[in-house]
Amino acid sequence: MVTAMKISINADMGESFGAYKLGDDGAVMPHISSANIACGMHAGDPVVMYRTVGLALEHGVSIGAHPGFSDLQGFGRRHITMDPSEIEYLVTYQIGALQALSASHGARVDFVKPHGALNNIAHHTGEVADAIARGIRAAGRDLIFVANCLSEMTRAAGEAGLPVAHEAYADRHYFPDGQLMPRSKNSAVIRDPELSAKRTVVMAQEQCLVAIDGTRISTPVDTFCIHADEPSAAAVARQVRAALVDAGISVAPVTGRN
Amino acid sequence: MVTAMKISINADMGESFGAYKLGDDGAVMPHISSANIACGMHAGDPVVMYRTVGLALEHGVSIGAHPGFSDLQGFGRRHITMDPSEIEYLVTYQIGALQALSASHGARVDFVKPHGALNNIAHHTGEVADAIARGIRAAGRDLIFVANCLSEMTRAAGEAGLPVAHEAYADRHYFPDGQLMPRSKNSAVIRDPELSAKRTVVMAQEQCLVAIDGTRISTPVDTFCIHADEPSAAAVARQVRAALVDAGISVAPVTGRN
Amino acid sequence: MVTAMKISINADMGESFGAYKLGDDGAVMPHISSANIACGMHAGDPVVMYRTVGLALEHGVSIGAHPGFSDLQGFGRRHITMDPSEIEYLVTYQIGALQALSASHGARVDFVKPHGALNNIAHHTGEVADAIARGIRAAGRDLIFVANCLSEMTRAAGEAGLPVAHEAYADRHYFPDGQLMPRSKNSAVIRDPELSAKRTVVMAQEQCLVAIDGTRISTPVDTFCIHADEPSAAAVARQVRAALVDAGISVAPVTGRN
Amino acid sequence: MVTAMKISINADMGESFGAYKLGDDGAVMPHISSANIACGMHAGDPVVMYRTVGLALEHGVSIGAHPGFSDLQGFGRRHITMDPSEIEYLVTYQIGALQALSASHGARVDFVKPHGALNNIAHHTGEVADAIARGIRAAGRDLIFVANCLSEMTRAAGEAGLPVAHEAYADRHYFPDGQLMPRSKNSAVIRDPELSAKRTVVMAQEQCLVAIDGTRISTPVDTFCIHADEPSAAAVARQVRAALVDAGISVAPVTGRN
Repeated sequence: MVTAMKISINADMGESFGAYKLGDDGAVMPHISSANIACGMHAGDPVVMYRTVGLALEHGVSIGAHPGFSDLQGFGRRHITMDPSEIEYLVTYQIGALQALSASHGARVDFVKPHGALNNIAHHTGEVADAIARGIRAAGRDLIFVANCLSEMTRAAGEAGLPVAHEAYADRHYFPDGQLMPRSKNSAVIRDPELSAKRTVVMAQEQCLVAIDGTRISTPVDTFCIHADEPSAAAVARQVRAALVDAGISVAPVTGRN
Repeated sequence: MVTAMKISINADMGESFGAYKLGDDGAVMPHISSANIACGMHAGDPVVMYRTVGLALEHGVSIGAHPGFSDLQGFGRRHITMDPSEIEYLVTYQIGALQALSASHGARVDFVKPHGALNNIAHHTGEVADAIARGIRAAGRDLIFVANCLSEMTRAAGEAGLPVAHEAYADRHYFPDGQLMPRSKNSAVIRDPELSAKRTVVMAQEQCLVAIDGTRISTPVDTFCIHADEPSAAAVARQVRAALVDAGISVAPVTGRN
Repeated sequence: MVTAMKISINADMGESFGAYKLGDDGAVMPHISSANIACGMHAGDPVVMYRTVGLALEHGVSIGAHPGFSDLQGFGRRHITMDPSEIEYLVTYQIGALQALSASHGARVDFVKPHGALNNIAHHTGEVADAIARGIRAAGRDLIFVANCLSEMTRAAGEAGLPVAHEAYADRHYFPDGQLMPRSKNSAVIRDPELSAKRTVVMAQEQCLVAIDGTRISTPVDTFCIHADEPSAAAVARQVRAALVDAGISVAPVTGRN
Repeated sequence: MVTAMKISINADMGESFGAYKLGDDGAVMPHISSANIACGMHAGDPVVMYRTVGLALEHGVSIGAHPGFSDLQGFGRRHITMDPSEIEYLVTYQIGALQALSASHGARVDFVKPHGALNNIAHHTGEVADAIARGIRAAGRDLIFVANCLSEMTRAAGEAGLPVAHEAYADRHYFPDGQLMPRSKNSAVIRDPELSAKRTVVMAQEQCLVAIDGTRISTPVDTFCIHADEPSAAAVARQVRAALVDAGISVAPVTGRN
């Protein structure tokens, strides 16, 4: 735990594409501190990316690349079998694209968080997590790897010498062993802002995951994810932020630990 | 004209995609000094880009981004109506992707040359040329804009404060007014290595374009393009290079002038 | 004019794609008689197409293919330069895909209406209109070509021996010469259900277009288009339908005339 | 076994895309009797499809749809996780597109064979095989399902009431249990025309697969596949065809059995 307790709130932003609008970035951005910006493969396009970086900067939100599988139709939620080196270059490609569009605004990419199926696979699969870590490091040695608590990604980030931010979900339930309840289960997503906020404060203060049955699983926790595609997202984000601040925890852009 | 006469030879590289192979980069790369690398929109993919950067480095060839319209099916040769700002971000996106994949090799992107229909439109259309210049500058203020001689692009590059390399075609005929003969004409492409080499030396030494009827049109000339998708490409490149060297002109990576 | 006055109301349906929702088909479908279903190139995907056919059938709405340029990012609204024969095959491809997915429901495609930029170009460009007509005829000699009044398409349909339905816009203004006011103009779209309904009845009864200044331009009118992507679409469709019925005009699936 | 021994030779055709050429259809088409034509998702585009149908007709070759995952970059060789119903509609979509482009030539699609990863998964996975069978049946109840010998697909085709053609590989080795040696193994592909031809005749005459160790696995065999993307394809196809004819077996378009 960092001495002056500081935590970030991240959410997926910039998921629109061409004429297709998705999510309500304008409503959610004011309540988060770090934006995971889609990079044009599973969502987003150059125009959306440029504008989303601009919106993040308006709100003092730090910029993260959110690379995913190249699969617009599946929104990056479908597993595509790829060699680790292919994943590595796919990740580097997407980060680079966002870095340049951030530079358009005089800004920079601070962190990287894999999206959807890529994140799910990397959670459990060491060689995919390692490939992502290599892909990130190639784009910048100081890029923070936002990685699920207790995953292969936290290990891979460390071994690659990347700063890592341990991520817990503000609005998702965990099983008692610390694994995330899959979103296919109805009860997986927490849409009650109060419940979400209460759990979040505990997880930040005690540096642990809180499972659905109350079990605590000890782990560093640096950042909380809120699912911006839920209609409850803005309300949850607002209350989570307020509860953290009330508990004396500062909400700030994502910070990595080495 | 630079005092110690130095000129570059550029060609489009990295145009394969997935299982689809296009061109013979291995045969052409040894004879050029600057590679225009496709960036995944009209051709290329992250794996191809990574490998092409590696191949360029093996041969001491400088790395350029070759952004095009997002149109794999049309290979970037079809005009797609877009707003200038959309073009600007599309260009920045592609440069950034290649910059990061170049960084994977510890290398950097030195120049940018628009591809296909994007190049054709920018040649004559000031606002598109300006959008490309802005898109380049956002990705790096020292990126060299490789721009057709006598085009809106050379003007736009200069006004944007970008270094510009004036490009002539080693293997394409010009009309007496300095305009390129469109490739749709059978006689547009010069596949005879000797003829191509002879013209090239004149254009370098006299700093002019040589039209099909022998007319000279005075213009700075910094780099020669060879069309790598012609079967004659490697032979033309070899002979052009040899002829330039024989004429006491050094062939080197693309250099811009401000 | 057909003796028992019968007219159809068509709207673009099935424009969602993967996780991206667009339009409110469920709200609009009950008020129209003919659905222009996107075919997976500028919008739609096989799942969306299958479901949209099902929704149309539930409401007794006839099924039309709505082929567009292959350009998801531009939603088919950007011109892509293509040879007429390429357009012909692109149109046939999309109709065939919808025909098979309609057959899944035991239904059939009755008509074809080009989408977006393809429609705009074909309006004025004879060879594109002819290519579309050939593309339609290849997929079925009895497919009705839904073609803008006073366009190259109505001519092309006739020359190709296809039944043609002359289309007027219920919710768009016309210039006094019968040309559509471009949607880029603020006032181009009519969002007032009452105004839209009033114009529509006149155009049906008098078989003419009504221009913004009241000018009548005589032309056959067989079907009215309503823009389903306007928030006012359901309200406009409901009122247009009611007004037509009140005027003794039957609203029925699109019918062609030879 | 059909009384007058008749067998077909099939190969994947029409795998080019835009400017990208793949395979040498002109060299292979004269030696096969049935063409598996890519349908624009993993390979092929409307122009390529139209021309490939034309080439097949010139050679009296029957037309089959070769649907694959929507994954041009992976050439349909990467598994994409999809629900069975999504696969069903994806298959129907692709067949329909080819049916219409065949109708342009006055021809029809006779059979369907899944491509690449879709084929591999359906081989072992009952619910995917069933989804494909439903997708085929929707597009035509008399479409022949070309299905690997001893696979879930032959079962699914039968249960769906579709005619089925049992497929063996002329140029691939089998394990003694009848499973195909994966192409990732160097020795998996047989590039020796003589060996390929010899095995093929045995498999046709004895209605069995011949494993790499000589083991015979009894199964109906109706059609032989030749991998058209191998440089040896035309030579193998020519010799296989000659050997079958020499053995008194007629090579004819694919025929299904119920």
